[in-house]
Amino acid sequence: MHKTNERCIFCKIINKSIPNAIVYEDDKFLVFLDRYPINYGHTLVIPKDHFDNILEMPINLVGEIHSLVPQIAKAVITTIGGNGFNVSQNNGKSANQIIPHVHVHIVPRFLAEKIKGQWPTRRIANIEDLKNLAERIKMNIGNIE
Amino acid sequence: MHKTNERCIFCKIINKSIPNAIVYEDDKFLVFLDRYPINYGHTLVIPKDHFDNILEMPINLVGEIHSLVPQIAKAVITTIGGNGFNVSQNNGKSANQIIPHVHVHIVPRFLAEKIKGQWPTRRIANIEDLKNLAERIKMNIGNIE
Repeated sequence: MHKTNERCIFCKIINKSIPNAIVYEDDKFLVFLDRYPINYGHTLVIPKDHFDNILEMPINLVGEIHSLVPQIAKAVITTIGGNGFNVSQNNGKSANQIIPHVHVHIVPRFLAEKIKGQWPTRRIANIEDLKNLAERIKMNIGNIE
Repeated sequence: MHKTNERCIFCKIINKSIPNAIVYEDDKFLVFLDRYPINYGHTLVIPKDHFDNILEMPINLVGEIHSLVPQIAKAVITTIGGNGFNVSQNNGKSANQIIPHVHVHIVPRFLAEKIKGQWPTRRIANIEDLKNLAERIKMNIGNIE
């Protein structure tokens, strides 16, 4: 049983009471495509236990979630043909954290873009499109270490 | 001996051939204050071995550098009285990575700010001011796990 906050939307995604485009899952972490992406392939990595921010999280779990990030990012970039990516994790309202459940953003970037590294207005993605993309990314994930 | 790129400015900081405001150092990592901060207390955590991006880095080392991040962030926030912080790590020119040596940004944020989470134009900090701040942050770092 995971540490859950019943008002948390990410805890509901973990419990599968909200549908999502899941890329990877194990006993500690869930990886899914952001419904409000800032770029194509925008992926979130979250711990299954609820922690508001990384200061509340066990240090070794912060290390573990970030060990997963390059492995997922590589699969995302391979799938969509991106040229780079931002890894971003916000703590607190002042840092623009919107959902108070730790999440690591993987935002693919493309050399043709003009908004390098900026965080533009989000759009709403179609869930079926995201599910199709998630299936393609899954095929590019090797054995997770 | 560390894996070094002789044209890399961060490798020169590691070798101490460029002065900097060092917050923490061990055999694998160096933590120092950004000379071009986007906010007060902007801190960088880097591996001493040179890797262009996290896809080139051993996975366990990516985990280790991020285990350090909350411990450093807590000391920074305690020292300067911040309300939150962004953890941000850019990979590739398309992702606005300026120095091609892996670095994790810790950017303190304040509720009074209006630019929540945005990345404004950087300023140039005075090195003596940074060294004084680094000494104060050091005093708030406990035993690193």
